[in-house]
Amino acid sequence: MQGVDPAWLPDGAFRPIGTRRTLIRGAGPLVDTVHGEVAEACRRFGGRVVRDAGADAGADGTAYDLVLELTGPEGLGSEGFTCRRENGVTHVTAFGQTGLLYGLFHVVRLGERAFTQDRQKQAHRPAVALRMLDHWDNVAVHPVMGQVERGYAGGSLFWADGRARGELLGRVRAYGRLLAACGINAVAVNNVNVHAVEARLLTDRIGEVAAIADALRPYGIRVHLSVTFAAPMVLGGLPTADPLDEGVRDWWAQTTSRVYEAIPDFGGYVVKADSEGQPGPFAYGRSHADGANMLAAALTASDSGSAAGPGGTVHWRAFVYDHRQDWRDRTTDRARAAYDHFVPLDGQFAPNAVLQVKHGPMDFQVREPISPLIGAMPGTRLAVEVQATQEYTGQQRHVCWLGPMWSEALRFRADGESTVGELARGGLVAVSNVGDDPFWTGHPLAQANLYTFGRLAWQPDANPYGLLDEWIRLTYTPTRSEESARLEAGVYAVLSHSWRTYEKYTAPLGVGWMVQPGHHYGPSVDGYEYSPWGTYHFADRDGIGVDRSVATGTGFAGQYAKPWAEVYESPETCPDELLLFFHHMSYEHMLHSGKTVIQHIYDTHFEGVEEVEAALGVWASLVDLVDPARHARVTERFEEQLRSAREWRDQVNSYFFRKSGVADAHGRRIY
Amino acid sequence: MQGVDPAWLPDGAFRPIGTRRTLIRGAGPLVDTVHGEVAEACRRFGGRVVRDAGADAGADGTAYDLVLELTGPEGLGSEGFTCRRENGVTHVTAFGQTGLLYGLFHVVRLGERAFTQDRQKQAHRPAVALRMLDHWDNVAVHPVMGQVERGYAGGSLFWADGRARGELLGRVRAYGRLLAACGINAVAVNNVNVHAVEARLLTDRIGEVAAIADALRPYGIRVHLSVTFAAPMVLGGLPTADPLDEGVRDWWAQTTSRVYEAIPDFGGYVVKADSEGQPGPFAYGRSHADGANMLAAALTASDSGSAAGPGGTVHWRAFVYDHRQDWRDRTTDRARAAYDHFVPLDGQFAPNAVLQVKHGPMDFQVREPISPLIGAMPGTRLAVEVQATQEYTGQQRHVCWLGPMWSEALRFRADGESTVGELARGGLVAVSNVGDDPFWTGHPLAQANLYTFGRLAWQPDANPYGLLDEWIRLTYTPTRSEESARLEAGVYAVLSHSWRTYEKYTAPLGVGWMVQPGHHYGPSVDGYEYSPWGTYHFADRDGIGVDRSVATGTGFAGQYAKPWAEVYESPETCPDELLLFFHHMSYEHMLHSGKTVIQHIYDTHFEGVEEVEAALGVWASLVDLVDPARHARVTERFEEQLRSAREWRDQVNSYFFRKSGVADAHGRRIY
Repeated sequence: MQGVDPAWLPDGAFRPIGTRRTLIRGAGPLVDTVHGEVAEACRRFGGRVVRDAGADAGADGTAYDLVLELTGPEGLGSEGFTCRRENGVTHVTAFGQTGLLYGLFHVVRLGERAFTQDRQKQAHRPAVALRMLDHWDNVAVHPVMGQVERGYAGGSLFWADGRARGELLGRVRAYGRLLAACGINAVAVNNVNVHAVEARLLTDRIGEVAAIADALRPYGIRVHLSVTFAAPMVLGGLPTADPLDEGVRDWWAQTTSRVYEAIPDFGGYVVKADSEGQPGPFAYGRSHADGANMLAAALTASDSGSAAGPGGTVHWRAFVYDHRQDWRDRTTDRARAAYDHFVPLDGQFAPNAVLQVKHGPMDFQVREPISPLIGAMPGTRLAVEVQATQEYTGQQRHVCWLGPMWSEALRFRADGESTVGELARGGLVAVSNVGDDPFWTGHPLAQANLYTFGRLAWQPDANPYGLLDEWIRLTYTPTRSEESARLEAGVYAVLSHSWRTYEKYTAPLGVGWMVQPGHHYGPSVDGYEYSPWGTYHFADRDGIGVDRSVATGTGFAGQYAKPWAEVYESPETCPDELLLFFHHMSYEHMLHSGKTVIQHIYDTHFEGVEEVEAALGVWASLVDLVDPARHARVTERFEEQLRSAREWRDQVNSYFFRKSGVADAHGRRIY
Repeated sequence: MQGVDPAWLPDGAFRPIGTRRTLIRGAGPLVDTVHGEVAEACRRFGGRVVRDAGADAGADGTAYDLVLELTGPEGLGSEGFTCRRENGVTHVTAFGQTGLLYGLFHVVRLGERAFTQDRQKQAHRPAVALRMLDHWDNVAVHPVMGQVERGYAGGSLFWADGRARGELLGRVRAYGRLLAACGINAVAVNNVNVHAVEARLLTDRIGEVAAIADALRPYGIRVHLSVTFAAPMVLGGLPTADPLDEGVRDWWAQTTSRVYEAIPDFGGYVVKADSEGQPGPFAYGRSHADGANMLAAALTASDSGSAAGPGGTVHWRAFVYDHRQDWRDRTTDRARAAYDHFVPLDGQFAPNAVLQVKHGPMDFQVREPISPLIGAMPGTRLAVEVQATQEYTGQQRHVCWLGPMWSEALRFRADGESTVGELARGGLVAVSNVGDDPFWTGHPLAQANLYTFGRLAWQPDANPYGLLDEWIRLTYTPTRSEESARLEAGVYAVLSHSWRTYEKYTAPLGVGWMVQPGHHYGPSVDGYEYSPWGTYHFADRDGIGVDRSVATGTGFAGQYAKPWAEVYESPETCPDELLLFFHHMSYEHMLHSGKTVIQHIYDTHFEGVEEVEAALGVWASLVDLVDPARHARVTERFEEQLRSAREWRDQVNSYFFRKSGVADAHGRRIY
């Protein structure tokens, strides 16, 4: 794309393939995609590609360097593939077309190594079937919020000038290509807060959704649609949206049937109901299971007989809490809400109704425990949602690579035995951080979050630092090849620790928030303290934190399975980094780290800024190795990050010094 | 006007005149206005009016109850009048037409008393020549701010659908009538922050301003226009706006000349320069006197030879400060800014350049000292600006009658001898609180602020409580006349103490702010504490307040004339209500009231809410006496006020309890 950053698919990534001879065997539209990719690489770099459409055609594989073949073992499913190299031939086989495409991108990731060293046959398949991005994109542009809710990368990739961009503009297809190259296979194309214009995408504007689906389909990506629970009323003119009302059920069935006429491989619905003002089944005295199951039934009915792929699912968000809480009432605890609402419904959801749960009990703070819901609904298909868009983690003006946070979450044994990655049988979902920005994500280094999410969704127990290396090698081709080690080491140094750096200079010890209300950028220690949002730290002159113990607090700690309920219940066993999430502690309390709470606050805030300064220095040293536009954009963001980090440091330190009266042990300047 | 609240000119107010015989002597458009008012009253109530256009016509005054005559003593100026009653005739004389109009409204205010008791001849004339409303109205509607900046009464009265309403719509004329009835004679028709569309009102859209002027002229009101200092560049295409550049001066001269062609009695310009991001002379190394004098010269040149009235003036706002201050820097004090910027320029301003100063050094907080600038520029014509629109005083959702605050300000002897009212030789100005709301001011009781301002501008040493009575009697006609005492007492009880009530439940002891950033509604104790706006309270665990003393603080107290510099310098002599504005005090400091600072905070916040509850009860008791629509609107606002007052109480009390650790002496509930 002209003027668009190539991200992790620069031309050079295809050079190892494009300079060689490739045979492609198999037929179908995604095999055409594979062929197109290889053919373009050969056109550019001088190699050759042969297409052998017959399943058992006779071309001699040994005449080629790379064979991509659609005859793999069925056991790997439609997305798996094998890869081996022997006798000078690199061989990729897959049973499904999508698997062949993923196999091609696997070879791209291997680079020259794919053709220089023999390798045993190895099977690859995704651990998680649904690897999804939720776009909080609106069709209409809000005068304040912009077009993408919590978007920090320009306008929407999908919607422009009030209409779908469709495939003609090419950018959507290019996006699908990037996503396939990191393993994402589903995209919800509109905001979960469904406004008036966007509601109509379900009905008279479904053709626009189909145009986006057409652009993404060649890369194995299915589209999903966020719908409003009130659709039968606002679109259908019915007097009710009661999920047990026959008229309502008929309306959804017929509407969904028309959706499948337009999009045969439609992925399903995403619903935010009874949440932050959105309508839902509570209005009719129905449960969330009633609501979700009605939509699941409509999807099942419409989808039966379709050969386009697995059936449609409804992704029902568990983000239900009282957002009009009274801050004076300390017995209500927002952290408890999802568990309290949904655990009683376990076992009641239809097989194609997926409950989509945020990874933490609050809302994508820089540090939260895992949602106890995840370990407590064995009879329900859960999808786990993370947030790639950096709403609370620097809004793509700060470097904050979230790989380690997500990895910790996915490897957490939520029910005491299985990991979150294993429990996420309904999929892994990230709120997208992409827009129509030339660098895709505003901050060029925020691409690493998108890439890492896709790869972690494929393999939740992967080492995130290895994925970071992978992204860097693909994305940062040095202008001088002998400098690749310096370049890779530099970008790695800037990113690898950045989440912990961000945590250091923002809200301490898991307590969260302390952001400016509304837009959520920059510090405001008391910004949410007296709000109706259930987001408090309760700092006074003696201490800080939320007592969520069973013994003396809100009881939230008791929602966890063993051993976590016991671990979190006591300050003695609670990990430092979550201490203030679970307990109200004196400023003088000694952490496991050997520091007091107040000294920890001071130290981390000074360290955080120092780390940003150091990272900026590293980035500056790479100026000769990075594309000038990309380097300049990152530098500009870094300067804002440094300004903002200093503001965080000084506001947080001053706030707690004024409250506690405790001086910094090292006598540093606190205003 | 259909559906529009009659405010202080209900039909009944004209009944005493409309039932009688009136003779009007004199000629001219404003005499026509007087005649029209009386004729309409007679049409409605059955009286008679005779017009005798000849200056010395022979009609026998004794045949009439009321004679309004344009032959008064020249010494009273164009706006003064005399009033007497003898031999059964009430006689009003004026030298100027405007004076006759004001005389008519004087009779309206007297009501039946004008015709039932003899009175000695008494001369009336305004103490202040210019009595002005600044409308912060925009032509274009901002998606967030709405149309009127800091407006809480709907859209603009002057601008609708992107154009001037003009006189055809009648509402502007009705507004002029209300203003004349309380003595206002000048209106600036657009926002001091001049945006792109509004800038053009000066040039190609001046015809729209002229249409507004036409609608207001029959009520003796001249229009003024806010202009951008950058106009020669943004409208004239010049490369500079340097006030000493000949091309710039020519452009302003020619432009102003065309303004006078369109509006012969044009009042002049209002300019906010080098303030909160607006352009100004600093960009060219010129002083504010240079800037103001250039515009003054353009107005003088264009206006010479016009017989339309006094010449045009430039109102140059003194609201200049650093709005990008670093909160860490305690040496910079926004309160000092206006004095520091402008006092060195005293004596340099042209005679028709008026420096417009906010009454306090900060920005229209519920309690501020008087701006020291007002006592320190004897060689400059000053206008003093107050804010009728309740930006920081409840946004016309809270009852907050500002009469006592303004009266205190106007009677303050700023230079130790003269009062602010006397020093305001350039006029008194209020930021308007009016919009296209049917009740004019959103909250029907906020009309009292507009009325009181007009009457105080006419007579700054008037007793504000008397003016409140006047407004109540005019505005609230009981449905049962025997109940008028109960009605008047009730409305008086609701309004008279309301400013002090509002003060009680908001920021304590003059420290100000503590509002939510941006929109300024509702509490946020630390909302502006770490901001760049120069608006801090510096509360820590030991105390609160800003040290502005000369001895140990920012030195602001030293900007005052004697005796105020000494009074404010020491906590011993500083009045309680301003203590935290001038000093940082321990929570345990004993006030002159005999309470500690912290107990004062607790007590006032509990009392404030109790007072709102009591006022709401009084208002409820008037339900049988007040027009239902008006009663319902006030009740609805009162409910929000009560909710908000409780929020203020609890947030402020909790904040200071958490910080100080001092318990309430009376053991009341603090969260």
